[in-house]
Amino acid sequence: MGDFAIRPATADDLPDIVAMLADDPLGAQRESPDDLTPYEAAFTRLAGDPQQHLVVAVREDRVVGTLQLTVVPGLSRRGATRSIIEGVRIHSDERGSGIGTRLIEWAVDESRRQDCQLVQLTSDATRIEAHRFYERLGFEASHLGFKLRLG
Amino acid sequence: MGDFAIRPATADDLPDIVAMLADDPLGAQRESPDDLTPYEAAFTRLAGDPQQHLVVAVREDRVVGTLQLTVVPGLSRRGATRSIIEGVRIHSDERGSGIGTRLIEWAVDESRRQDCQLVQLTSDATRIEAHRFYERLGFEASHLGFKLRLG
Repeated sequence: MGDFAIRPATADDLPDIVAMLADDPLGAQRESPDDLTPYEAAFTRLAGDPQQHLVVAVREDRVVGTLQLTVVPGLSRRGATRSIIEGVRIHSDERGSGIGTRLIEWAVDESRRQDCQLVQLTSDATRIEAHRFYERLGFEASHLGFKLRLG
Repeated sequence: MGDFAIRPATADDLPDIVAMLADDPLGAQRESPDDLTPYEAAFTRLAGDPQQHLVVAVREDRVVGTLQLTVVPGLSRRGATRSIIEGVRIHSDERGSGIGTRLIEWAVDESRRQDCQLVQLTSDATRIEAHRFYERLGFEASHLGFKLRLG
């Protein structure tokens, strides 16, 4: 694999990011890559929120990965700030290439820069390979993740 | 149980909130109710972040519960905004009184007001009673929650 860079996402990256979100066993049912309108509105909200860090991994001018990092201040654990990783996706051509590891390492490094004491994420219970991946990177599956869909 | 109100937390509520955070099997090892300095700094960060909603439940001028709600825009699920619940604590005298249910219902209602499509939270795997509580309120334990402590 050649060298790649991690940089903040721009609105021009949206088609590539949404294509990756949709190219996924769970995402296939939830995304609409042919209609970017809702994603453009969401990107505007992300760009206006200083606690949001949406990045892409780029190799030879091609977007090959993405991740969203949210910085969350809080009172518990002696006023600890935590970060939350969401929306990790790697282009299907590039899985197993180490880009996922580098994206998570970027998120951990950025969390330290932001004085976070904890990095957390949830992973669908069916994503067994992802669980092994996060455990290899030092994450501990100490919690259950609950979700409630609002109709 | 008498009537109670849910309102935004103020700096004056910090001693009561921290006492609740510390009065917990896990929190007892992680909190420092005798030194509020780190909590005051964290409260300032929370108060300055428009996506953060730290509330207390108050009954007869007494703080009896707390919860932190974070609104997180995102691209996945067609640009869905989600909310994240953290730091749910009920005063030990008031457990089983329905205050926890009312706090979570407040968080769900506020999430709808903020146009969230999803409410999520993680709960330590050892908090079996909390898991039943969230399931009774309609949450689904569909995910694993991973954490990495930054040293």
